[in-house]
Amino acid sequence: MLKTKIVGATGYGGLGIIDLILQHPEFELTTLVARESVGEKISDVYPHLNGFCDLPILAADDPLAESYADVVIYATPDRVGMTMAQADLKKGAKIIDYSGDFRFTTEDAYADYATRIGKAPDHAAPFLLGQNAYGLAELHRDEIKNANIVGNPGCFACSCILGMAPAVGNALVEPFSIICDCKTGVSGAGKKVNPAFHYPARYEQMNAYKLAGHQHVCEVEHELSLLSNEEIRITFTAQVVPICRGILSTLYGSLTKSISEADVLEIYKEFFKESPFVRVFNSTTPMGTMNVRGTNFCNLVISVDERVNRLRIVSHIDNLMKGQAGSALQNMNLMFNIPETTGLNRPGMYP
Amino acid sequence: MLKTKIVGATGYGGLGIIDLILQHPEFELTTLVARESVGEKISDVYPHLNGFCDLPILAADDPLAESYADVVIYATPDRVGMTMAQADLKKGAKIIDYSGDFRFTTEDAYADYATRIGKAPDHAAPFLLGQNAYGLAELHRDEIKNANIVGNPGCFACSCILGMAPAVGNALVEPFSIICDCKTGVSGAGKKVNPAFHYPARYEQMNAYKLAGHQHVCEVEHELSLLSNEEIRITFTAQVVPICRGILSTLYGSLTKSISEADVLEIYKEFFKESPFVRVFNSTTPMGTMNVRGTNFCNLVISVDERVNRLRIVSHIDNLMKGQAGSALQNMNLMFNIPETTGLNRPGMYP
Amino acid sequence: MLKTKIVGATGYGGLGIIDLILQHPEFELTTLVARESVGEKISDVYPHLNGFCDLPILAADDPLAESYADVVIYATPDRVGMTMAQADLKKGAKIIDYSGDFRFTTEDAYADYATRIGKAPDHAAPFLLGQNAYGLAELHRDEIKNANIVGNPGCFACSCILGMAPAVGNALVEPFSIICDCKTGVSGAGKKVNPAFHYPARYEQMNAYKLAGHQHVCEVEHELSLLSNEEIRITFTAQVVPICRGILSTLYGSLTKSISEADVLEIYKEFFKESPFVRVFNSTTPMGTMNVRGTNFCNLVISVDERVNRLRIVSHIDNLMKGQAGSALQNMNLMFNIPETTGLNRPGMYP
Amino acid sequence: MLKTKIVGATGYGGLGIIDLILQHPEFELTTLVARESVGEKISDVYPHLNGFCDLPILAADDPLAESYADVVIYATPDRVGMTMAQADLKKGAKIIDYSGDFRFTTEDAYADYATRIGKAPDHAAPFLLGQNAYGLAELHRDEIKNANIVGNPGCFACSCILGMAPAVGNALVEPFSIICDCKTGVSGAGKKVNPAFHYPARYEQMNAYKLAGHQHVCEVEHELSLLSNEEIRITFTAQVVPICRGILSTLYGSLTKSISEADVLEIYKEFFKESPFVRVFNSTTPMGTMNVRGTNFCNLVISVDERVNRLRIVSHIDNLMKGQAGSALQNMNLMFNIPETTGLNRPGMYP
Repeated sequence: MLKTKIVGATGYGGLGIIDLILQHPEFELTTLVARESVGEKISDVYPHLNGFCDLPILAADDPLAESYADVVIYATPDRVGMTMAQADLKKGAKIIDYSGDFRFTTEDAYADYATRIGKAPDHAAPFLLGQNAYGLAELHRDEIKNANIVGNPGCFACSCILGMAPAVGNALVEPFSIICDCKTGVSGAGKKVNPAFHYPARYEQMNAYKLAGHQHVCEVEHELSLLSNEEIRITFTAQVVPICRGILSTLYGSLTKSISEADVLEIYKEFFKESPFVRVFNSTTPMGTMNVRGTNFCNLVISVDERVNRLRIVSHIDNLMKGQAGSALQNMNLMFNIPETTGLNRPGMYP
Repeated sequence: MLKTKIVGATGYGGLGIIDLILQHPEFELTTLVARESVGEKISDVYPHLNGFCDLPILAADDPLAESYADVVIYATPDRVGMTMAQADLKKGAKIIDYSGDFRFTTEDAYADYATRIGKAPDHAAPFLLGQNAYGLAELHRDEIKNANIVGNPGCFACSCILGMAPAVGNALVEPFSIICDCKTGVSGAGKKVNPAFHYPARYEQMNAYKLAGHQHVCEVEHELSLLSNEEIRITFTAQVVPICRGILSTLYGSLTKSISEADVLEIYKEFFKESPFVRVFNSTTPMGTMNVRGTNFCNLVISVDERVNRLRIVSHIDNLMKGQAGSALQNMNLMFNIPETTGLNRPGMYP
Repeated sequence: MLKTKIVGATGYGGLGIIDLILQHPEFELTTLVARESVGEKISDVYPHLNGFCDLPILAADDPLAESYADVVIYATPDRVGMTMAQADLKKGAKIIDYSGDFRFTTEDAYADYATRIGKAPDHAAPFLLGQNAYGLAELHRDEIKNANIVGNPGCFACSCILGMAPAVGNALVEPFSIICDCKTGVSGAGKKVNPAFHYPARYEQMNAYKLAGHQHVCEVEHELSLLSNEEIRITFTAQVVPICRGILSTLYGSLTKSISEADVLEIYKEFFKESPFVRVFNSTTPMGTMNVRGTNFCNLVISVDERVNRLRIVSHIDNLMKGQAGSALQNMNLMFNIPETTGLNRPGMYP
Repeated sequence: MLKTKIVGATGYGGLGIIDLILQHPEFELTTLVARESVGEKISDVYPHLNGFCDLPILAADDPLAESYADVVIYATPDRVGMTMAQADLKKGAKIIDYSGDFRFTTEDAYADYATRIGKAPDHAAPFLLGQNAYGLAELHRDEIKNANIVGNPGCFACSCILGMAPAVGNALVEPFSIICDCKTGVSGAGKKVNPAFHYPARYEQMNAYKLAGHQHVCEVEHELSLLSNEEIRITFTAQVVPICRGILSTLYGSLTKSISEADVLEIYKEFFKESPFVRVFNSTTPMGTMNVRGTNFCNLVISVDERVNRLRIVSHIDNLMKGQAGSALQNMNLMFNIPETTGLNRPGMYP
């Protein structure tokens, strides 16, 4: 069994990967680290884990937290993983990081990202860039297999990049025409209390936020530009609706030529033919976020608005699964040469 | 007091105008007609009305339903109002119709609408077209004052037209570039049960629907084209999220020239300076559908994505108020020369 | 117009009375005091108030906060009102207090309450006890009319006392047999964020809490004992469910004699015949908390389980209205000799 | 692999056992029968099953529906299983029935049940009574192992019986003093649309229903009376709240003697020491229905109200799991000599 350490174990991102590893035949949980609830058991924080995972929560500087792990998952904010990863790597661990720290493979690309979100442009461990891969298996499967560090995608970014990659990769859409209108459930904001997510303030509320710029824009543009032979710029709108799990991203792009929905559908199916977690549907298939809740699937509905020659893709994921812990496990499988769907091949919970 | 008759009184649209008229100083409810629950009191159907409105529900052919009314409100589907309105008009009533029947003032425009939604192109009362006005007071205040019949706007349409009118009227956006990404609460689908709105199937579900074309597209294009000197075509996406009341429409258009958010804001404020129910905000104002719940306001948030020279407007309404009964009462006020805000000037319920 | 000052204006309790006073013909808002958001406008905290109430939020020690008010409402926790009320009274104001501070009219009764909830037993202003009344108009209408200070009931307490008062007052139930099984919406916990009310942790959660004893037990027992000629002791269970507004309290008591549902119904109707906000229904009437949402009504459903000779009352209120601000306004009306239903006679919002 | 046939496969009860069997190592789904959606695939009805279970839905009289199965699950209303079971038994199948048909083992007991819920008192297959067992493993483990037919418990009944069994079995409570105040999520009402479960009518609604008598009362009294040496009669209140999954039953009984919470806790732990799915907690443990969502656990919180010498048990289950499909699988495991927790040993989904 491969030993797994989670840093930031008490947030929803940590919990997600705990839940998945508990059902995985090759990984086992050995070390949980967090800043909150140190000394408690994880099942004190999340009582549903009672009897399933009762590991103690350790401080980062607890000697027990130093125990060997085959894989270390940083379910932490920006600039945590980049300062700690080297120590893990030296002990032979592989790294998954949930933040923006390892989503870019050059100092320049990182600096561009950090600057756009108002953070310091310098990466704390520039010598590690190059050992890392962007953790979207559908685009970077081989790099992930060979990487020591994987920068797990942002949840919105995952839904947008998968939805637009075939179109951009096949030069179907104008490079500055892409609009990503994204709606997320509240769990996307994590476990931390916030007046905007207090039940009475949220149950009947939907709203857009961060209109000036969301931290996931940069990686979407970066990945789509890599697939294109031109710079891609997107307009991105982040919105929150009162569901717990789910992202629905409605993606638009002006078509570079006249093409039928059926032909686009074929291009998308071809693009994802080796990707078991992406499913492509035509525009008349009933579809919603509950179809992917609790799963690692990304369901894409393809439509073409022929009156204005515009492509529209509706992308559905569970933000805590394909948008976070599910992708993390998919990446871990690839990094350790385990079949990609292991521990992820399940239909989800309904209703 | 002005006598008010409601046809289709038992749906959410009928209920909405009942609730408003109960608090209005000039209108009084005198006749309720519906196909369901005939013989019951309206307060049997909606117990919260107990003691406030206990009128009986009459069948359309009940002689009592023929009593004189100053205004008749058709809270009914397409093709009901157009077949019944003439009889009311002859008795001297003015008409509000919630359906598409009177949203267009020429036979051709109606035929275009009906054809696009797969209905018979012929209007049942073409001789009435010309006496009617499109019931969006912010654009057609004077026509409404002088009309015998008002075609109340569709809920989505209301949010989109108000959001884009100043931009289109000032030629700020390219005519085929407009995208309306619209999300509605479940009450927009009305009172009728449906597997898609069964609580367990909906509480964690968001989804797009009618990707091939929604019935409100035609009136949005029609109204925006009237404001422009060119034909406007939009891409429209209808989506449902698990809230009860509220529409959030995110509207995009490619700018025809470089212009700052501040300048667009001024143009919008100027456009709506005589319209008490439209409020305009800059892109950093916190805003959501709960800010307009239970009110007749349309709150517009203005932003410009300068990197791609695109305008983005986030439009917020309560679909049952400004999107339906609120606009209806606003129109009734205008038709009877009552101050426009009478009975509508209230902050809504929070939380 | 009667000048109204609210201390604790930024919580849900303060907001509730603001919303009501805005629609009241005799009271006007003049002063808002709070500890948070000082210097902001109340409409910055609650944007739906924009244009309806834009008063500044003052610190308690701001000289402007000292302005004369005819009535001061303490929407504050225990031990705030009791330390500040005397200053208001000296200036001629009447007082409404939302906390437990003035729910008991003797030092001993207060000490009993305070001790049971683990607080200091001494009242800070014992000389004011005797000028105060328990603010449940249906039981203490005359005392309220003559009181300078009214202790507004707890939300759970209001639902339980109204539900059991006729039975206890008519000696229908055994004094130690009463069980109050109470379920509240989340707004009952107020505006303050809390991990238990974070949307993802609450949307599918219902739970009991404070099994060892809830702060409202004491006033329920106190009021029911006053109505009885024996000491009443209850078993009380507080539970939270994921709705925003509403309390449903299911109340049980062993009948002292065999009596039919119809006869109990008559006793209840007689008891509340002068109380416009209490409505009594038989056991086959469909009923739920949405029937009273946004209103000051308490709807009571009467049933008798003849197989075991037990009375069961299902009591429905809106916890923010009859359970808080609605009762406060009802009491203010009485204190100022205004008709009891003024500003409260409305059906609520549906759906 | 044991072949499994489900009759009534398209309801939530059918879906629940499909989801469980898909993850079970010994059972496999072979035949799905229903009255609706015949000819479609089950994954057309429940798209999340796409690729996991794509079996066709057969009519009951389809020859393919006659194929051999080791176990047949009747996820059907009363009086379906009793008319069809004999044919299955003759072919050697074992039977699980979700309805009241096989919850009683004598004609008299069945007649009593049927009469109380207003149905015909005659059992359609009285010769099968005696081969059946009541499917609550914690009370009838051995009978279930040896039964050909298991009558799966009602969801409310399961929560009440488990919560009161140790108290009644140890004569701790007065036989006519038990009150079951039960709250269920909406999924308990099944998949069928209903105005009461239409999203806008439910999201803010909680209500009691069937005050005159619920169909689960009879089995609760029957099972508890079996455990006692006296007749047990309960007062039972069914209530619905806007969550999807979960039952919280608050159970009360007058203690026959003075006993501490700690002592009751020991009695409960002893009673369930061989029952892996029942967990017992003291009254200060934070607990709610989300702690058991998606699991087969029943979590019981014990408290004693010493002031009135009353026992209070708060019982938590997932109505679709321990309350239905989970118990069904637990019973199937027992009937086929498979370890009781197989396929059920999982923590559930959070958040």
